[in-house]
Amino acid sequence: MMFEQLALIGCGLMGGSFALALKRAGLVKRVVGYSKSPSTTERARQLDVIDVEAPSALLAVSGADLVLVAVPVAATEATLKAIKHMVTPSMLIMDVGSTKGDVTDAARRALKEQLGSFVPAHPITGKELAGIEHAEADLYRGCKVILTPTERTLTVQLKQAQALWSALGCEVVQMSPEAHDAAFAAVSHLPHLLAFALMNAIQGQAQGVQFLPLAGPGFRDFTRIAASDPKVWRDILLANGPELLAQSQLFQAQLQAFETLVRSGDAKALEALIEQASAARTQWQMTQTAKPC
Amino acid sequence: MMFEQLALIGCGLMGGSFALALKRAGLVKRVVGYSKSPSTTERARQLDVIDVEAPSALLAVSGADLVLVAVPVAATEATLKAIKHMVTPSMLIMDVGSTKGDVTDAARRALKEQLGSFVPAHPITGKELAGIEHAEADLYRGCKVILTPTERTLTVQLKQAQALWSALGCEVVQMSPEAHDAAFAAVSHLPHLLAFALMNAIQGQAQGVQFLPLAGPGFRDFTRIAASDPKVWRDILLANGPELLAQSQLFQAQLQAFETLVRSGDAKALEALIEQASAARTQWQMTQTAKPC
Repeated sequence: MMFEQLALIGCGLMGGSFALALKRAGLVKRVVGYSKSPSTTERARQLDVIDVEAPSALLAVSGADLVLVAVPVAATEATLKAIKHMVTPSMLIMDVGSTKGDVTDAARRALKEQLGSFVPAHPITGKELAGIEHAEADLYRGCKVILTPTERTLTVQLKQAQALWSALGCEVVQMSPEAHDAAFAAVSHLPHLLAFALMNAIQGQAQGVQFLPLAGPGFRDFTRIAASDPKVWRDILLANGPELLAQSQLFQAQLQAFETLVRSGDAKALEALIEQASAARTQWQMTQTAKPC
Repeated sequence: MMFEQLALIGCGLMGGSFALALKRAGLVKRVVGYSKSPSTTERARQLDVIDVEAPSALLAVSGADLVLVAVPVAATEATLKAIKHMVTPSMLIMDVGSTKGDVTDAARRALKEQLGSFVPAHPITGKELAGIEHAEADLYRGCKVILTPTERTLTVQLKQAQALWSALGCEVVQMSPEAHDAAFAAVSHLPHLLAFALMNAIQGQAQGVQFLPLAGPGFRDFTRIAASDPKVWRDILLANGPELLAQSQLFQAQLQAFETLVRSGDAKALEALIEQASAARTQWQMTQTAKPC
Protein backbone atom coordinates (compact mmCIF):
# COMPACT_ATOMS: atom_id res chain seq x y z
CA MET A 1 0.00 0.00 0.00
CA MET A 2 1.50 3.27 -1.14
CA PHE A 3 -0.40 6.47 -1.80
CA GLU A 4 0.62 8.89 -4.52
CA GLN A 5 -0.78 12.01 -2.94
CA LEU A 6 -2.26 12.85 0.42
CA ALA A 7 -4.55 15.88 0.38
CA LEU A 8 -4.35 17.22 3.91
CA ILE A 9 -7.18 19.60 4.66
CA GLY A 10 -6.54 21.26 7.99
CA CYS A 11 -2.85 21.50 8.90
CA GLY A 12 -3.17 21.32 12.69
CA LEU A 13 -1.94 18.91 15.36
CA MET A 14 -3.96 15.91 14.15
CA GLY A 15 -3.58 16.47 10.40
CA GLY A 16 0.08 17.41 10.62
CA SER A 17 0.89 14.37 12.74
CA PHE A 18 -0.91 12.13 10.24
CA ALA A 19 1.17 13.51 7.36
CA LEU A 20 4.41 13.06 9.33
CA ALA A 21 3.49 9.50 10.31
CA LEU A 22 2.62 8.58 6.72
CA LYS A 23 5.85 10.06 5.41
CA ARG A 24 7.98 8.31 7.97
CA ALA A 25 6.27 4.99 7.24
CA GLY A 26 6.99 5.51 3.53
CA LEU A 27 3.29 5.28 2.70
CA VAL A 28 2.92 8.46 0.68
CA LYS A 29 4.89 10.13 -2.10
CA ARG A 30 3.56 13.66 -1.87
CA VAL A 31 1.54 15.67 0.67
CA VAL A 32 -0.46 18.61 -0.61
CA GLY A 33 -1.86 20.71 2.21
CA TYR A 34 -4.51 23.31 2.69
CA SER A 35 -5.55 25.26 5.77
CA LYS A 36 -8.12 28.02 6.09
CA SER A 37 -5.37 30.32 7.28
CA PRO A 38 -2.65 30.76 4.60
CA SER A 39 -0.04 31.38 7.30
CA THR A 40 -0.76 27.92 8.79
CA THR A 41 -0.37 26.26 5.38
CA GLU A 42 2.90 28.14 4.87
CA ARG A 43 4.15 27.07 8.31
CA ALA A 44 3.28 23.44 7.54
CA ARG A 45 5.36 23.72 4.38
CA GLN A 46 8.28 25.30 6.24
CA LEU A 47 8.18 22.47 8.79
CA ASP A 48 8.16 19.91 5.93
CA VAL A 49 4.86 18.50 7.16
CA ILE A 50 3.42 19.14 3.70
CA ASP A 51 5.35 19.27 0.43
CA VAL A 52 3.09 21.61 -1.51
CA GLU A 53 0.71 24.38 -0.44
CA ALA A 54 -2.66 24.33 -2.18
CA PRO A 55 -4.67 27.54 -2.55
CA SER A 56 -7.95 25.71 -1.85
CA ALA A 57 -9.24 22.42 -0.44
CA LEU A 58 -10.48 21.51 -3.92
CA LEU A 59 -7.05 21.99 -5.49
CA ALA A 60 -5.39 19.98 -2.70
CA VAL A 61 -7.65 17.06 -3.61
CA SER A 62 -6.85 17.33 -7.32
CA GLY A 63 -4.65 14.33 -8.10
CA ALA A 64 -4.96 12.85 -4.61
CA ASP A 65 -5.75 9.20 -3.88
CA LEU A 66 -5.96 9.85 -0.12
CA VAL A 67 -7.76 12.74 1.58
CA LEU A 68 -7.66 13.55 5.28
CA VAL A 69 -10.14 16.10 6.57
CA ALA A 70 -8.70 17.32 9.90
CA VAL A 71 -10.86 20.32 10.79
CA PRO A 72 -13.17 21.09 13.74
CA VAL A 73 -16.12 18.71 13.27
CA ALA A 74 -18.67 21.43 12.46
CA ALA A 75 -16.56 22.40 9.43
CA THR A 76 -16.74 18.87 7.96
CA GLU A 77 -19.81 19.42 5.78
CA ALA A 78 -18.53 22.62 4.16
CA THR A 79 -15.14 20.99 3.61
CA LEU A 80 -16.59 17.90 1.95
CA LYS A 81 -18.87 20.06 -0.22
CA ALA A 82 -15.86 22.11 -1.29
CA ILE A 83 -13.96 19.04 -2.53
CA LYS A 84 -16.86 16.98 -3.88
CA HIS A 85 -16.18 17.74 -7.55
CA MET A 86 -12.69 16.30 -7.33
CA VAL A 87 -13.73 13.13 -5.47
CA THR A 88 -13.21 9.96 -7.51
CA PRO A 89 -14.62 6.50 -6.79
CA SER A 90 -11.16 5.10 -6.00
CA MET A 91 -10.23 7.84 -3.54
CA LEU A 92 -10.05 7.13 0.21
CA ILE A 93 -11.42 10.02 2.25
CA MET A 94 -11.23 10.05 6.05
CA ASP A 95 -11.70 12.48 8.88
CA VAL A 96 -10.25 12.40 12.41
CA GLY A 97 -13.18 13.96 14.29
CA SER A 98 -14.10 13.07 17.86
CA THR A 99 -17.82 12.76 17.04
CA LYS A 100 -19.11 10.43 14.38
CA GLY A 101 -22.91 10.80 14.13
CA ASP A 102 -22.73 14.41 12.95
CA VAL A 103 -19.74 13.73 10.68
CA THR A 104 -21.52 10.81 9.02
CA ASP A 105 -24.65 12.92 8.50
CA ALA A 106 -22.53 15.72 7.08
CA ALA A 107 -20.82 13.30 4.68
CA ARG A 108 -24.19 11.94 3.50
CA ARG A 109 -25.41 15.44 2.71
CA ALA A 110 -22.17 16.68 1.18
CA LEU A 111 -20.86 13.71 -0.77
CA LYS A 112 -24.13 12.12 -1.91
CA GLU A 113 -23.27 9.51 -4.60
CA GLN A 114 -19.58 9.76 -3.64
CA LEU A 115 -20.30 8.72 -0.04
CA GLY A 116 -18.75 5.29 -0.72
CA SER A 117 -15.26 6.79 -0.65
CA PHE A 118 -15.65 8.12 2.87
CA VAL A 119 -14.51 6.20 5.97
CA PRO A 120 -15.24 8.15 9.18
CA ALA A 121 -12.31 7.72 11.58
CA HIS A 122 -11.55 8.73 15.15
CA PRO A 123 -8.02 8.11 16.38
CA ILE A 124 -8.05 8.08 20.20
CA THR A 125 -5.10 10.34 20.74
CA GLY A 126 -4.19 13.99 20.91
CA LYS A 127 -2.51 16.38 23.21
CA GLU A 128 -3.44 19.61 24.85
CA LEU A 129 -1.11 21.60 22.59
CA ALA A 130 -2.91 22.43 19.36
CA GLY A 131 -1.32 23.52 16.10
CA ILE A 132 1.12 22.36 13.45
CA GLU A 133 4.12 23.24 15.65
CA HIS A 134 3.18 20.36 17.96
CA ALA A 135 2.59 17.78 15.24
CA GLU A 136 4.68 14.63 15.65
CA ALA A 137 5.06 11.42 13.69
CA ASP A 138 4.51 9.36 16.84
CA LEU A 139 1.14 10.81 17.87
CA TYR A 140 -0.84 7.87 16.46
CA ARG A 141 1.52 5.03 17.36
CA GLY A 142 -0.05 2.56 19.78
CA CYS A 143 -3.47 4.18 19.89
CA LYS A 144 -6.92 2.88 19.00
CA VAL A 145 -8.66 4.15 15.87
CA ILE A 146 -12.42 3.83 15.65
CA LEU A 147 -13.86 3.45 12.15
CA THR A 148 -17.59 4.01 11.72
CA PRO A 149 -18.29 3.13 8.06
CA THR A 150 -21.64 4.23 6.64
CA GLU A 151 -24.06 1.82 4.98
CA ARG A 152 -22.59 2.93 1.65
CA THR A 153 -18.87 2.87 2.45
CA LEU A 154 -17.11 0.71 -0.15
CA THR A 155 -15.27 -2.39 1.02
CA VAL A 156 -12.11 -1.42 -0.85
CA GLN A 157 -11.87 1.89 1.01
CA LEU A 158 -12.70 0.31 4.36
CA LYS A 159 -9.94 -2.27 3.90
CA GLN A 160 -7.50 0.42 2.81
CA ALA A 161 -8.35 2.47 5.89
CA GLN A 162 -7.83 -0.52 8.17
CA ALA A 163 -4.48 -1.33 6.54
CA LEU A 164 -3.33 2.29 6.67
CA TRP A 165 -4.02 2.82 10.38
CA SER A 166 -2.56 -0.59 11.22
CA ALA A 167 0.58 0.35 9.33
CA LEU A 168 0.84 3.45 11.54
CA GLY A 169 0.83 1.19 14.62
CA CYS A 170 -2.82 1.67 15.57
CA GLU A 171 -5.37 -0.84 16.78
CA VAL A 172 -8.42 -0.56 14.51
CA VAL A 173 -11.90 -0.94 16.02
CA GLN A 174 -15.14 -0.80 14.03
CA MET A 175 -18.51 0.31 15.39
CA SER A 176 -21.60 2.31 14.52
CA PRO A 177 -21.52 6.11 14.77
CA GLU A 178 -24.24 5.92 17.45
CA ALA A 179 -22.32 3.46 19.64
CA HIS A 180 -19.20 5.58 19.18
CA ASP A 181 -20.89 8.79 20.26
CA ALA A 182 -22.54 7.19 23.31
CA ALA A 183 -19.22 5.77 24.50
CA PHE A 184 -17.17 8.90 23.91
CA ALA A 185 -19.71 11.12 25.62
CA ALA A 186 -18.88 9.11 28.76
CA VAL A 187 -15.13 8.52 28.48
CA SER A 188 -14.00 11.67 26.69
CA HIS A 189 -16.49 14.48 26.14
CA LEU A 190 -17.80 14.58 29.71
CA PRO A 191 -14.28 14.52 31.25
CA HIS A 192 -13.37 17.49 29.05
CA LEU A 193 -16.51 19.32 30.15
CA LEU A 194 -15.71 18.64 33.82
CA ALA A 195 -12.12 19.80 33.42
CA PHE A 196 -13.29 23.02 31.71
CA ALA A 197 -15.86 23.65 34.46
CA LEU A 198 -13.30 23.05 37.23
CA MET A 199 -10.84 25.55 35.75
CA ASN A 200 -13.55 28.17 35.41
CA ALA A 201 -14.82 27.49 38.94
CA ILE A 202 -11.38 28.08 40.42
CA GLN A 203 -10.66 31.07 38.23
CA GLY A 204 -14.05 32.58 39.06
CA GLN A 205 -13.17 32.92 42.75
CA ALA A 206 -11.38 35.91 44.22
CA GLN A 207 -8.94 33.52 45.94
CA GLY A 208 -8.39 31.46 42.79
CA VAL A 209 -5.10 33.19 41.99
CA GLN A 210 -3.79 32.17 45.42
CA PHE A 211 -5.05 28.60 45.05
CA LEU A 212 -3.57 27.77 41.65
CA PRO A 213 0.16 28.04 42.48
CA LEU A 214 -0.35 25.38 45.17
CA ALA A 215 -1.76 22.78 42.80
CA GLY A 216 0.24 19.58 42.40
CA PRO A 217 0.53 16.57 40.12
CA GLY A 218 -3.05 15.36 40.69
CA PHE A 219 -4.40 18.69 39.49
CA ARG A 220 -1.92 18.73 36.60
CA ASP A 221 -3.13 15.41 35.21
CA PHE A 222 -6.82 15.96 35.97
CA THR A 223 -6.89 19.33 34.18
CA ARG A 224 -4.51 18.57 31.32
CA ILE A 225 -7.42 18.20 28.89
CA ALA A 226 -8.82 21.59 29.96
CA ALA A 227 -6.10 23.19 27.82
CA SER A 228 -7.59 21.61 24.68
CA ASP A 229 -8.38 23.64 21.57
CA PRO A 230 -11.52 25.77 22.14
CA LYS A 231 -12.86 25.62 18.56
CA VAL A 232 -12.36 21.87 18.30
CA TRP A 233 -14.10 21.25 21.63
CA ARG A 234 -16.90 23.76 21.05
CA ASP A 235 -17.83 21.69 18.01
CA ILE A 236 -17.52 18.34 19.78
CA LEU A 237 -19.67 19.35 22.78
CA LEU A 238 -22.37 20.73 20.47
CA ALA A 239 -22.26 17.83 18.01
CA ASN A 240 -22.74 15.27 20.77
CA GLY A 241 -24.94 17.44 22.98
CA PRO A 242 -27.77 15.03 23.88
CA GLU A 243 -25.43 12.14 24.79
CA LEU A 244 -23.14 14.50 26.68
CA LEU A 245 -25.99 16.00 28.70
CA ALA A 246 -27.30 12.53 29.53
CA GLN A 247 -23.86 11.48 30.79
CA SER A 248 -23.56 14.69 32.76
CA GLN A 249 -26.84 13.88 34.53
CA LEU A 250 -25.57 10.42 35.50
CA PHE A 251 -22.37 12.01 36.74
CA GLN A 252 -24.17 14.61 38.82
CA ALA A 253 -26.28 11.94 40.48
CA GLN A 254 -23.08 10.18 41.56
CA LEU A 255 -21.54 13.44 42.70
CA GLN A 256 -24.60 14.13 44.83
CA ALA A 257 -24.40 10.67 46.35
CA PHE A 258 -20.86 11.52 47.46
CA GLU A 259 -21.95 14.92 48.76
CA THR A 260 -24.72 13.37 50.84
CA LEU A 261 -22.24 11.07 52.55
CA VAL A 262 -19.72 13.86 53.15
CA ARG A 263 -22.48 16.01 54.64
CA SER A 264 -23.74 13.23 56.92
CA GLY A 265 -20.21 12.10 57.82
CA ASP A 266 -20.94 8.49 56.88
CA ALA A 267 -17.34 7.23 56.75
CA LYS A 268 -18.16 3.62 56.01
CA ALA A 269 -20.46 4.29 53.06
CA LEU A 270 -18.09 6.95 51.74
CA GLU A 271 -15.16 4.55 51.81
CA ALA A 272 -17.26 2.00 49.94
CA LEU A 273 -18.07 4.51 47.17
CA ILE A 274 -14.42 5.51 46.82
CA GLU A 275 -13.37 1.86 46.89
CA GLN A 276 -15.73 1.21 43.97
CA ALA A 277 -14.23 4.07 41.93
CA SER A 278 -10.67 3.16 42.87
CA ALA A 279 -11.12 -0.50 41.97
CA ALA A 280 -12.72 0.39 38.64
CA ARG A 281 -9.87 2.73 37.75
CA THR A 282 -7.24 0.19 38.82
CA GLN A 283 -8.93 -2.50 36.76
CA TRP A 284 -9.11 -0.21 33.74
CA GLN A 285 -5.40 0.55 34.02
CA MET A 286 -4.59 -3.15 34.00
CA THR A 287 -6.39 -3.60 30.67
CA GLN A 288 -4.22 -0.92 29.06
CA THR A 289 -1.25 -1.82 26.93
CA ALA A 290 2.22 -0.95 28.16
CA LYS A 291 2.36 2.27 26.18
CA PRO A 292 -1.13 3.77 26.40
CA CYS A 293 -1.49 6.20 23.54
CA MET B 1 21.53 18.37 60.19
CA MET B 2 21.54 14.67 60.92
CA PHE B 3 18.90 12.74 62.82
CA GLU B 4 19.76 9.81 65.04
CA GLN B 5 16.45 8.00 64.73
CA LEU B 6 13.36 8.46 62.60
CA ALA B 7 10.24 6.95 64.09
CA LEU B 8 8.06 6.17 61.11
CA ILE B 9 4.46 5.60 62.11
CA GLY B 10 2.56 4.31 59.12
CA CYS B 11 4.73 2.43 56.62
CA GLY B 12 2.80 3.24 53.45
CA LEU B 13 3.63 5.07 50.22
CA MET B 14 4.17 8.47 51.84
CA GLY B 15 5.94 7.31 54.98
CA GLY B 16 8.08 4.75 53.21
CA SER B 17 9.15 7.25 50.56
CA PHE B 18 10.09 9.74 53.29
CA ALA B 19 12.30 7.15 55.01
CA LEU B 20 13.97 6.23 51.71
CA ALA B 21 14.58 9.87 50.82
CA LEU B 22 16.08 10.61 54.24
CA LYS B 23 18.35 7.58 54.06
CA ARG B 24 19.57 8.40 50.58
CA ALA B 25 20.29 11.99 51.60
CA GLY B 26 22.28 10.69 54.56
CA LEU B 27 20.08 12.57 56.99
CA VAL B 28 19.20 9.74 59.35
CA LYS B 29 21.16 6.97 61.07
CA ARG B 30 18.32 4.61 61.95
CA VAL B 31 14.68 4.20 60.97
CA VAL B 32 12.37 2.45 63.41
CA GLY B 33 8.99 1.71 61.87
CA TYR B 34 5.54 0.82 63.04
CA SER B 35 2.38 0.07 61.10
CA LYS B 36 -1.02 -1.02 62.40
CA SER B 37 -0.67 -4.18 60.38
CA PRO B 38 2.37 -6.24 61.47
CA SER B 39 2.73 -7.68 57.97
CA THR B 40 3.17 -4.16 56.57
CA THR B 41 5.87 -3.36 59.13
CA GLU B 42 7.59 -6.63 58.28
CA ARG B 43 7.41 -5.88 54.56
CA ALA B 44 8.92 -2.42 55.16
CA ARG B 45 11.80 -4.11 56.98
CA GLN B 46 12.30 -6.63 54.18
CA LEU B 47 12.40 -3.81 51.64
CA ASP B 48 14.99 -1.96 53.80
CA VAL B 49 12.69 1.01 54.09
CA ILE B 50 12.94 0.70 57.87
CA ASP B 51 15.81 -0.79 59.83
CA VAL B 52 13.94 -1.96 62.90
CA GLU B 53 10.33 -3.05 63.45
CA ALA B 54 8.70 -1.61 66.55
CA PRO B 55 5.82 -3.45 68.23
CA SER B 56 3.98 -0.18 68.93
CA ALA B 57 3.97 3.47 67.89
CA LEU B 58 5.15 4.40 71.38
CA LEU B 59 8.17 2.11 71.20
CA ALA B 60 9.07 3.40 67.73
CA VAL B 61 9.25 6.90 69.20
CA SER B 62 11.45 5.79 72.10
CA GLY B 63 14.89 7.20 71.35
CA ALA B 64 13.76 9.10 68.24
CA ASP B 65 14.61 12.72 67.52
CA LEU B 66 12.38 12.76 64.42
CA VAL B 67 8.84 11.38 64.16
CA LEU B 68 6.78 11.11 60.99
CA VAL B 69 3.10 10.30 61.36
CA ALA B 70 1.99 9.00 57.97
CA VAL B 71 -1.48 7.59 58.59
CA PRO B 72 -4.94 8.45 57.23
CA VAL B 73 -5.72 11.90 58.71
CA ALA B 74 -8.54 10.67 60.97
CA ALA B 75 -6.04 8.40 62.74
CA THR B 76 -3.76 11.33 63.64
CA GLU B 77 -5.26 12.05 67.06
CA ALA B 78 -5.11 8.47 68.32
CA THR B 79 -1.57 8.13 66.97
CA LEU B 80 -0.34 11.29 68.70
CA LYS B 81 -2.05 10.24 71.94
CA ALA B 82 -0.34 6.87 71.74
CA ILE B 83 3.13 8.42 71.49
CA LYS B 84 2.66 11.43 73.79
CA HIS B 85 4.51 9.94 76.77
CA MET B 86 7.69 9.51 74.72
CA VAL B 87 7.58 13.00 73.18
CA THR B 88 10.48 15.21 74.30
CA PRO B 89 10.80 18.98 73.88
CA SER B 90 13.64 18.62 71.39
CA MET B 91 11.85 16.14 69.16
CA LEU B 92 10.55 17.15 65.71
CA ILE B 93 7.17 15.59 64.95
CA MET B 94 5.50 15.99 61.56
CA ASP B 95 2.64 14.51 59.62
CA VAL B 96 2.07 14.34 55.86
CA GLY B 97 -1.71 14.68 55.80
CA SER B 98 -3.65 16.37 53.01
CA THR B 99 -5.84 18.34 55.43
CA LYS B 100 -4.39 20.63 58.06
CA GLY B 101 -7.23 22.13 60.12
CA ASP B 102 -8.33 18.78 61.54
CA VAL B 103 -4.73 17.59 62.02
CA THR B 104 -3.83 20.76 63.92
CA ASP B 105 -6.90 20.40 66.14
CA ALA B 106 -6.06 16.75 66.76
CA ALA B 107 -2.50 17.68 67.72
CA ARG B 108 -3.73 20.34 70.16
CA ARG B 109 -5.98 17.82 71.88
CA ALA B 110 -3.49 14.95 71.85
CA LEU B 111 -0.14 16.61 72.54
CA LYS B 112 -1.24 19.43 74.88
CA GLU B 113 1.94 20.89 76.47
CA GLN B 114 4.07 19.00 73.92
CA LEU B 115 2.36 20.75 70.97
CA GLY B 116 5.49 22.86 70.40
CA SER B 117 7.30 19.85 68.87
CA PHE B 118 4.70 19.37 66.15
CA VAL B 119 5.01 20.91 62.67
CA PRO B 120 2.01 20.00 60.47
CA ALA B 121 3.25 19.27 56.94
CA HIS B 122 1.63 18.50 53.60
CA PRO B 123 3.95 17.48 50.77
CA ILE B 124 2.14 18.04 47.46
CA THR B 125 2.96 14.73 45.88
CA GLY B 126 1.76 11.17 45.80
CA LYS B 127 0.76 8.58 43.31
CA GLU B 128 -2.27 6.46 42.75
CA LEU B 129 -0.47 3.32 43.88
CA ALA B 130 -0.68 3.04 47.65
CA GLY B 131 1.48 0.87 49.88
CA ILE B 132 5.07 0.35 50.89
CA GLU B 133 5.83 -1.57 47.66
CA HIS B 134 5.46 1.67 45.72
CA ALA B 135 7.56 3.83 48.04
CA GLU B 136 10.43 5.58 46.27
CA ALA B 137 13.20 7.90 47.39
CA ASP B 138 12.33 10.37 44.62
CA LEU B 139 8.67 10.90 45.52
CA TYR B 140 9.30 14.21 47.28
CA ARG B 141 12.00 15.62 45.02
CA GLY B 142 10.90 18.85 43.32
CA CYS B 143 7.56 19.13 45.06
CA LYS B 144 6.07 21.81 47.29
CA VAL B 145 5.66 21.15 51.01
CA ILE B 146 3.15 23.23 52.93
CA LEU B 147 3.94 23.78 56.60
CA THR B 148 1.12 25.06 58.82
CA PRO B 149 2.76 25.68 62.22
CA THR B 150 0.42 26.18 65.18
CA GLU B 151 0.60 29.21 67.46
CA ARG B 152 2.71 27.09 69.82
CA THR B 153 5.09 25.43 67.36
CA LEU B 154 8.66 26.10 68.51
CA THR B 155 10.98 28.03 66.22
CA VAL B 156 13.70 25.38 66.48
CA GLN B 157 11.39 22.68 65.18
CA LEU B 158 9.97 24.89 62.45
CA LYS B 159 13.48 25.71 61.20
CA GLN B 160 14.46 22.03 61.36
CA ALA B 161 11.40 21.09 59.35
CA GLN B 162 12.17 23.74 56.72
CA ALA B 163 15.78 22.58 56.46
CA LEU B 164 14.80 18.93 56.26
CA TRP B 165 12.28 19.31 53.43
CA SER B 166 14.64 21.65 51.57
CA ALA B 167 17.37 19.03 51.86
CA LEU B 168 15.01 16.54 50.20
CA GLY B 169 14.66 18.90 47.24
CA CYS B 170 11.29 20.40 48.19
CA GLU B 171 10.08 23.98 48.02
CA VAL B 172 8.77 24.92 51.46
CA VAL B 173 5.69 27.15 51.74
CA GLN B 174 4.18 28.32 55.02
CA MET B 175 0.52 29.20 55.56
CA SER B 176 -2.32 28.87 58.04
CA PRO B 177 -4.25 25.58 58.28
CA GLU B 178 -7.40 27.42 57.19
CA ALA B 179 -5.81 28.90 54.06
CA HIS B 180 -4.36 25.48 53.27
CA ASP B 181 -7.67 23.69 53.54
CA ALA B 182 -9.52 26.29 51.46
CA ALA B 183 -6.95 26.06 48.67
CA PHE B 184 -6.71 22.27 48.62
CA ALA B 185 -10.46 21.82 48.61
CA ALA B 186 -10.34 23.57 45.23
CA VAL B 187 -7.18 22.21 43.62
CA SER B 188 -7.05 18.69 45.06
CA HIS B 189 -9.99 17.43 47.09
CA LEU B 190 -12.67 18.45 44.58
CA PRO B 191 -10.78 16.99 41.59
CA HIS B 192 -10.53 13.70 43.48
CA LEU B 193 -14.26 13.79 44.24
CA LEU B 194 -15.06 14.48 40.57
CA ALA B 195 -12.79 11.67 39.38
CA PHE B 196 -14.43 9.23 41.84
CA ALA B 197 -17.91 10.30 40.73
CA LEU B 198 -17.04 9.93 37.04
CA MET B 199 -15.74 6.39 37.51
CA ASN B 200 -18.87 5.41 39.43
CA ALA B 201 -21.12 7.07 36.86
CA ILE B 202 -19.57 5.09 34.02
CA GLN B 203 -19.49 1.87 35.99
CA GLY B 204 -23.10 2.32 37.07
CA GLN B 205 -24.35 2.08 33.47
CA ALA B 206 -25.18 -1.17 31.76
CA GLN B 207 -23.04 -0.07 28.80
CA GLY B 208 -20.14 1.02 30.99
CA VAL B 209 -18.18 -2.19 30.38
CA GLN B 210 -18.34 -1.49 26.64
CA PHE B 211 -17.36 2.16 27.08
CA LEU B 212 -14.27 1.71 29.24
CA PRO B 213 -12.04 -0.24 26.81
CA LEU B 214 -12.38 2.66 24.35
CA ALA B 215 -11.04 5.28 26.73
CA GLY B 216 -7.83 7.01 25.72
CA PRO B 217 -5.06 9.17 27.16
CA GLY B 218 -7.36 12.04 28.19
CA PHE B 219 -9.42 9.66 30.32
CA ARG B 220 -6.27 8.04 31.66
CA ASP B 221 -4.89 11.30 33.00
CA PHE B 222 -8.23 12.74 34.14
CA THR B 223 -9.08 9.63 36.18
CA ARG B 224 -5.60 8.75 37.47
CA ILE B 225 -6.42 10.16 40.91
CA ALA B 226 -9.60 8.06 41.09
CA ALA B 227 -7.37 5.07 41.89
CA SER B 228 -6.23 6.74 45.13
CA ASP B 229 -6.35 4.94 48.47
CA PRO B 230 -9.98 4.73 49.74
CA LYS B 231 -9.20 5.03 53.46
CA VAL B 232 -6.88 8.00 52.96
CA TRP B 233 -9.42 9.81 50.79
CA ARG B 234 -12.43 8.93 52.94
CA ASP B 235 -10.68 10.78 55.76
CA ILE B 236 -9.65 13.76 53.63
CA LEU B 237 -13.11 14.32 52.15
CA LEU B 238 -14.69 14.14 55.60
CA ALA B 239 -12.04 16.27 57.33
CA ASN B 240 -12.43 19.07 54.81
CA GLY B 241 -16.17 18.58 54.20
CA PRO B 242 -17.48 22.15 54.42
CA GLU B 243 -14.78 23.62 52.16
CA LEU B 244 -15.14 20.72 49.75
CA LEU B 245 -18.92 21.08 49.52
CA ALA B 246 -18.58 24.83 48.96
CA GLN B 247 -16.12 24.21 46.10
CA SER B 248 -18.41 21.56 44.67
CA GLN B 249 -21.26 24.10 44.55
CA LEU B 250 -19.09 26.59 42.66
CA PHE B 251 -18.08 23.82 40.28
CA GLN B 252 -21.67 22.73 39.65
CA ALA B 253 -22.69 26.30 38.86
CA GLN B 254 -19.98 26.39 36.17
CA LEU B 255 -20.99 22.98 34.88
CA GLN B 256 -24.57 24.15 34.55
CA ALA B 257 -23.44 27.25 32.68
CA PHE B 258 -21.79 24.94 30.14
CA GLU B 259 -24.86 22.71 29.96
CA THR B 260 -27.12 25.66 29.26
CA LEU B 261 -24.97 26.67 26.29
CA VAL B 262 -24.76 23.11 24.95
CA ARG B 263 -28.54 22.80 25.24
CA SER B 264 -29.19 26.10 23.47
CA GLY B 265 -26.45 25.47 20.89
CA ASP B 266 -24.80 28.82 21.56
CA ALA B 267 -21.47 28.13 19.82
CA LYS B 268 -19.96 31.56 20.36
CA ALA B 269 -20.58 31.72 24.12
CA LEU B 270 -19.53 28.07 24.51
CA GLU B 271 -16.25 28.72 22.73
CA ALA B 272 -15.66 31.73 25.02
CA LEU B 273 -16.17 29.59 28.16
CA ILE B 274 -13.81 26.88 26.86
CA GLU B 275 -11.29 29.53 25.84
CA GLN B 276 -11.34 30.87 29.40
CA ALA B 277 -10.68 27.40 30.87
CA SER B 278 -8.06 26.56 28.25
CA ALA B 279 -6.18 29.83 28.76
CA ALA B 280 -6.23 29.40 32.54
CA ARG B 281 -4.84 25.88 32.29
CA THR B 282 -2.17 26.91 29.78
CA GLN B 283 -1.13 29.80 32.02
CA TRP B 284 -0.97 27.50 35.04
CA GLN B 285 1.26 25.08 33.15
CA MET B 286 3.66 27.87 32.29
CA THR B 287 4.13 28.69 35.98
CA GLN B 288 5.16 25.10 36.74
CA THR B 289 8.80 24.14 37.07
CA ALA B 290 10.35 21.90 34.47
CA LYS B 291 9.82 18.78 36.56
CA PRO B 292 6.43 19.21 38.21
CA CYS B 293 6.31 16.90 41.20
